[in-house]
Parts: sequence; C-alpha cells; structure tokens
Amino acid sequence: MDPENSPKKQSLIETRGCRDVSFLDLCSIDQVTKKDLVLIYDIARKFREYKTYKINFNKGNSLVNAFFESSTRTMASFDLSAKQLSMDTTAVGSNCSIKKGESYIDTIQTVDAMNVKVIIIRTKESGVPEMLARHTSASIINAGDGWHEHPTQALLDGLTMLDYFNSTNLKGRTVTIVGDIMHSRVFGSLVRLLKKLDATVRVAAPETMIPKHANKFGVNLYYNVEEAIRGADIVYALRVQKERGANGFIPSLREYSKMFGISRARLDLAKKNAILMHPGPITRDIDVHSALSVVDKQSHILQQVENGASVRKALLWLIGNRYDGKVKSYKKI
Amino acid sequence: MDPENSPKKQSLIETRGCRDVSFLDLCSIDQVTKKDLVLIYDIARKFREYKTYKINFNKGNSLVNAFFESSTRTMASFDLSAKQLSMDTTAVGSNCSIKKGESYIDTIQTVDAMNVKVIIIRTKESGVPEMLARHTSASIINAGDGWHEHPTQALLDGLTMLDYFNSTNLKGRTVTIVGDIMHSRVFGSLVRLLKKLDATVRVAAPETMIPKHANKFGVNLYYNVEEAIRGADIVYALRVQKERGANGFIPSLREYSKMFGISRARLDLAKKNAILMHPGPITRDIDVHSALSVVDKQSHILQQVENGASVRKALLWLIGNRYDGKVKSYKKI
Amino acid sequence: MDPENSPKKQSLIETRGCRDVSFLDLCSIDQVTKKDLVLIYDIARKFREYKTYKINFNKGNSLVNAFFESSTRTMASFDLSAKQLSMDTTAVGSNCSIKKGESYIDTIQTVDAMNVKVIIIRTKESGVPEMLARHTSASIINAGDGWHEHPTQALLDGLTMLDYFNSTNLKGRTVTIVGDIMHSRVFGSLVRLLKKLDATVRVAAPETMIPKHANKFGVNLYYNVEEAIRGADIVYALRVQKERGANGFIPSLREYSKMFGISRARLDLAKKNAILMHPGPITRDIDVHSALSVVDKQSHILQQVENGASVRKALLWLIGNRYDGKVKSYKKI
Repeated sequence: MDPENSPKKQSLIETRGCRDVSFLDLCSIDQVTKKDLVLIYDIARKFREYKTYKINFNKGNSLVNAFFESSTRTMASFDLSAKQLSMDTTAVGSNCSIKKGESYIDTIQTVDAMNVKVIIIRTKESGVPEMLARHTSASIINAGDGWHEHPTQALLDGLTMLDYFNSTNLKGRTVTIVGDIMHSRVFGSLVRLLKKLDATVRVAAPETMIPKHANKFGVNLYYNVEEAIRGADIVYALRVQKERGANGFIPSLREYSKMFGISRARLDLAKKNAILMHPGPITRDIDVHSALSVVDKQSHILQQVENGASVRKALLWLIGNRYDGKVKSYKKI
Repeated sequence: MDPENSPKKQSLIETRGCRDVSFLDLCSIDQVTKKDLVLIYDIARKFREYKTYKINFNKGNSLVNAFFESSTRTMASFDLSAKQLSMDTTAVGSNCSIKKGESYIDTIQTVDAMNVKVIIIRTKESGVPEMLARHTSASIINAGDGWHEHPTQALLDGLTMLDYFNSTNLKGRTVTIVGDIMHSRVFGSLVRLLKKLDATVRVAAPETMIPKHANKFGVNLYYNVEEAIRGADIVYALRVQKERGANGFIPSLREYSKMFGISRARLDLAKKNAILMHPGPITRDIDVHSALSVVDKQSHILQQVENGASVRKALLWLIGNRYDGKVKSYKKI
Repeated sequence: MDPENSPKKQSLIETRGCRDVSFLDLCSIDQVTKKDLVLIYDIARKFREYKTYKINFNKGNSLVNAFFESSTRTMASFDLSAKQLSMDTTAVGSNCSIKKGESYIDTIQTVDAMNVKVIIIRTKESGVPEMLARHTSASIINAGDGWHEHPTQALLDGLTMLDYFNSTNLKGRTVTIVGDIMHSRVFGSLVRLLKKLDATVRVAAPETMIPKHANKFGVNLYYNVEEAIRGADIVYALRVQKERGANGFIPSLREYSKMFGISRARLDLAKKNAILMHPGPITRDIDVHSALSVVDKQSHILQQVENGASVRKALLWLIGNRYDGKVKSYKKI
C-alpha cells in the first residue's frame, strides 16, 4: 500500500539528497520517520521566523486544493503557504464533476494532467488520498480523509508541543486527548505522531465514542475526564463531529459538555503550566468552555494555527526541493 | 468602541508619518477625517491613472476575503486590487466553520494567526467588523455589516462625485438618495460621508422604508420622488433589498417601481447635467428603468466601479505603508 | 453579429501585426481562420514544451472567470494557465448578483469596469458570450454557452488529433463522434473545427439525440454505433448530459450504455491504432466502459487535458500580445 513504490516515483526518490524527507506523498503519519520530523520542524521554525516574507522558490509550480469536503482553516493555510512560496494555486471540489458522475480517480488524474506539482486532498471517505497517490505524477498531501487521518494537523500539533517543552521528544510527558476519538481523523494522525515522539497518551471519551481498535495504539482509556486530566502536561480537546453523526452516540450535546467539556476547573486538574490545545473549529461551551477558549493564557490554539502555516510551507518546500530543477515527464498511467 | 485604542495597535500608530491615514481598521466612515479623504483620493487617482500595472509594493503580505454574505463586485474588486499590489489573497466564508458552530471571533482570530495583514469582512449582522477589529493584529476593513455601513462604497462614491464637479467638497451641491434607506448599509456610510463633504442631502423613500433615526443625519425627507429630484445635482438610486425582507415594506415591486423607480422623466427633473449613480447590482426596471441603466450618458455607475478598484488599492497601500518594513509580532490576545 | 465590428475594438484590430490571431473575443470556432489555427498550435506546442515554467509576460493583466454554470477542469485550466503567464485572476459567478436580479450584461460590464483584460464566460444559455463581447472592452472567451459552443475544447481536441497524426490537417481521416450531440456544446464547436481541418465526420447517436440541423454540418449520421466506428481513425465519445435533461431522450442510462457506450469490442472495430477521446468528465460505464477509461493505451483523454492548458495559454498570450504596451482607455458604452 506504500505509494512510494509506484515505478513513476522510484526514479525521483533516487535523486534525493541528505536534506530530503523520505516521502513524496503524505497520506499518513506512518510514512513520516523520526529523521523526517527533525527536518520538517527545522525548516518550519525558519519559515515561522520569516513570517510572511515572500520566497521566490517554487515559482512556476502549481498546487491544487481538491477539497471534496468543506474547510476553512486547512484550505486557507495551504493556499497562503503555497502562494508565499511563489506557487500558483487553484481549487477544485466544491462544485465539481464528482456530482456529474465522475470518479475521484478521473477527477484527480485530470488535475494531474495539467502538470501540477502538489494536490491537496480532503474527502469524506477514508483511504482515498493513498489510492490517488499511486496514480498521479503530482505529490498528494492528505488534508483529511474520512475518520482516518489528517497528517498535517498532527505535524503542527507536534511542533507546538515540542516548542513548548523546548525538547526534541515528549518522553515523560502525558497528553490527554478528550472527546470524540472515533469520528476524529485528527486523533488518527495525532496518536501515531505522539507514539513516535514517545509521549504517554491518555484518552477520555464517552464509551460509545471509543472505537474498538483504540487499544492498538497503546493509549490509556478513561471514561472519567477528571481522572484522565489529573497531572497531564497537555490537554487536547476534540470537536464533537455533529456533521459526521457524532451526536447519535451521546445523550445530548448539553450532557456531553457537562461530562467532557473542558472547563477551568477541569484544566486546573492538569499540571500547573499544562497547555490546552484544540484542532479547531471550537464549538464553544461544548468542547471547550467559553471562559477558556482561544485567548486564555494556557491555550495554545492560535499557536497551533500559526505553526500550521509554517509546517505546510516546510512540507511544500521539501517536496519542491526534491524535484528542484527537474521537469516531470508526462506519462500515460 | 474605537478599535484604534487597543494596546496592540497603539505602538504602530505612533510610527506613522505625515502621509498616513488616521486609522488602522476601517469599520465606519466616522473614523475617516477630512485629511484622510484628501490623502486617500490623492493616491486613488494615481492608481486609476496607472490602471492595471502591477505594483511591487505589498509583496509577501496577505489579504483574506472573509465574506459571510455573498458578494460579486466588492469581493472581486478587493481581490484584484490586492493582487495588483502584489499581495497574496485567499477567501474564507462561503463554506466556513461558522456552520460547524464556530463563532466569528474564533474564525477571524484563526485567520489572524496565519499572519495576514488585512482581513476584509462582510456579515449579515451589524457591528461585527468593529468588534473583530479590537481582537486582531491584522487590519479589518468592513465590506458591509448588516444594515449598518459599507465604508469603501461611500469612499468610491465620494471620489466619483468630487471628480465630476472637479472640487474638493460638495458645498452647495444637492444629492438626492432614492430608495430603501432603512435596509441600506450603503446609505449608512454615504450619508456620513456626504455630511463630511458639506453636501445638501435629500432622501426620497416610501414612509415605511425610512428609519426613525434618519433625522439625526441632518437630511431632508421627501415622500414624493419628483419633489426630491427637482434641481438636484446627483440622483443616487438604491436597490430594494429583497434578500433582507425589504419587500415586506412596500405593496409590491411593481408599485415601488412606479412610485420611486428612476425613469428618464424623473431624471430630467434634476439639473441639466445631473449624474445618476447606483451602488449596484441594479434591479432593472425596479430601482432604475432599463432605458437609463448603466450606459446612459448621465449614468456614472461604471465610473463608480472603476473608482472602487482605485480607492481599495489606495486603502491597502496606505495601510501597508503604515507597517512598511515592520514584522508584526504574534501576540496572545 | 460579429463582435469584432464594434467601434471600440476596430482601432485595436488595426494595430495587429503578422503574429496576431484574427479575433479579439473567442465566442465560436467560426471566428477562427486556418491561419489562426497554425498560429495557436505553434504557440501551444511551445507552452507544452515549457510545461509549468512561469512566464513574465502578461504581468499586471487580470483575468476573471465568470462561470455561471459549474466547472472543474475548464475553470482550473484557465485559472492556472493565466497564473503561469503572470496574470492576476479572480472569479465571479457561483454566488453572484444574478441571483439578486442583476442582468448578465450589468454583471459583466461591472467586471469590465475593473480594467480586466480577459473574461472567461460559461452560461446555461446559448449566445450570451457573443452578446457580451459587443459590450465590453475586455476580451471575452466562451467557455461553454448552453447547447451551442465550447471553442477552447475543440481547439485542444484539434491539437491532440493533429499531433497524433503528425499532420497539419485531417484530410482522409475519419472521426466518429458518439453520443448526445443534441445537448452537446462540445459537438457544436468540434464539428465546426473538424470541417475546417477537412476531416470526414461520422455521428452515432440515438435518433432522439440528433438535432434537426445536424445535416447542415455535412456529417454522416448513423443510428448503429458499430457501423459508425468501423474503420474510423478517431472515436470521440460524448457525455450523456443528465443535468441538461438528456436522459429524457433515452429509455434508460443502462440502455444507452448497452447501445452506445464505448467498449473494448466496439473500439476494436476502428482502425488498429485508432485513438479514443472524450471531453470529460467521463460517466464511467455509461459513455465509456471502465475497462477503457482514461488510462488505456488507446485513450488520449489525459493528453486532451494537458493540451487544454497549452492551448489556453496560447490564446491568452496571443490576446495579450495584441494589446501589449497599450493601456485600454475606459469608455462609456
């Protein structure tokens, strides 16, 4: 299932130097090695320092945002990041041919035939980006596939955590993830990354929102949120995914908020300088009580967003770097 | 309520030179001084002369169009204006997280955390841009908030009028505004600007479409459109805002057209060289009869559009200029 | 009806040199001369060779995508093509003022007043681009109008065919077009182009999907698809336009697929190296059986897409070239 094994990409992989990530497509955190992480974060920190300065690097390269499920922050973040690297961008998806009966693969191969370098994919279904990566010349970056993964979210979360602890790993740190982990692709990527960074992971959720395979990630399950938060270094709240039918698994949103919503009192059970994180968008007073929200001094939610832009620029830069000076040949596939 | 008083912006204000406007956010015409007007129009005329030449000025700076209510001309005008100043742009709003339960403030602070320089806001509700301006590092420009204001529309209207009379004010000029002034944010900004420019303002509308506070602007009210137009220098027609429920206030659109629609005969009651203006989009044969429309020699409707692009470029340039050479520091707010 | 005869464009036409196409707006293949074709394809091949390299040519010029009917590939292709020529682009249409009661002409004249150089138009109604071309200063390119024409699709199809046969015309070549030719604007443009290139054109469709005026194009009509394909050099499948009510003309999609869908067996009736083409999006197993689809070695569907980008860049370059160094004066029309 490794998209890197397609023959069309093999030759490009062989051209990579020592400053190269090990992947050409990013579909899952499983593809990211510890060495990749060091490299991505090194470059992301540089981009964060440069802020909005325009970089004349990927000029002439195109990125297509193919969001078949709606997005605000992720799409805007990829779009501005690409533009600040001098890439040309366009979007397909919201009114797209899928509705006229076209398959994902035909749509994306069509986009690929326009000689674009990177395609960002978000789909309601799991596994689509990985399937598409095997059939395109462009690099595919997964921006969320069903309940499966959202790898760039996890990468930015990891950067936020490492920078807070000023460390290269999370050994000895406890991260408590609270909420609807079953429907959350953010959880799918985050838990994989946290294990790579050697964190201790606790999960607190209503029993109905914990998937059967949760154990395979080596996390500690809690049905009581207070117990899960006590002594944690990081409290990571997830959103109740109403649009994916999550409220069929809880008595009511009000009940959920009362039992699992992050309040001041609950956050105070964590370590003194524990940080609050959330992938956004926040449903105020459901996932996180308004009194905390994004602007509390313990909240690192806006840092997550800022790091998102930096991590995405680093990824686009690294992928662009691998191809630098090369013109990909158009191939029948 | 003045967004300029937030501490985060105070330090920036102190760096401004003599060629600077007095505001960092533009939420209401009330913020614009007479000195600002001279400066904005001076620069807008230069941009109008340059037409579409690309200016390498705001390179690396980003603008986000956050239109939570749909728009054609205003959004396209801001988008192209920013691009011609070498800014990067993206849009949020049409499929945004607000629908997933996120608040305006969380959405806009998220956008702000991506290190953008300017956010253009349009909302169905009044007062949102002003509230947001106090909580962002980026400059907020109001592109229409509910029934309240639409300041860039008024600024472009003012430029169109001043250029026609080749003057720096409208002393001794009579402007007749016809139509649904109650639901019109265009009116809200225009009347404030016209008073700053010393115009005499007449208003003609069905009694049900005149808000109670209309008198506070020092305008002369008419229920008879012919009387209001007689001897005017400028006839400014507004659109019946069907989408804001305006037709609940009139017997029928046909009736409205008959009583208040601008026909050749009605326009002829104004001064010989009186000009016809309209903020667009025109509902033909309701607000303005087809025989007049945009291409009549008395119509300045397309000049308004052209001036819109110039005024918006001037604003982005002036706001960019205030920050020139500075990297805004990311702050928890 | 020739938009080139409008006085505002006459003066520009006179400035054109020997490397200029004969049109300023592209509404129909009827406007394209054989000399134009040579020029367009010459430049398109150059752009195809350059692939995605950014060209600093049309800098400062703006293009507006005005798609009043949804599109994936055509809009993305125009958007990226323009950006790779350094044009600024924006879009209107999906949430536009047409819904507030504005006419096409008022919307497009508004866009024109923003000093854009090219407006790409797609509408549900036939003839709109031609009408608009007579009333704008910007060049209008028709990206599909109702059941009438889609000229850039035909131009890219022609390039794909000529390159395959390594020839400057299609003399002695037989092109079989299969499917819903009545509702197809692709057919409207393609048949005009094929006659200019001296191809023999066969058409195979259910009787109910052949318009009465089909004969005027000098094509050979077949109701039996096997007979139409036998000995052909090119098989060009069209899509059943469900969204334009096409399935009211056939017993069922399943029936259509059985009678007219392109299968391996049917394609094998054509010449040995015959090529399969389709304008996309494909409705798999209806127009074209999955076994063939875009990646079969006889399929040139992805080449069509790649040629689309090249042809569109050539058109934008040629139109930009005609204006080069000139600032269009803003005129009341």
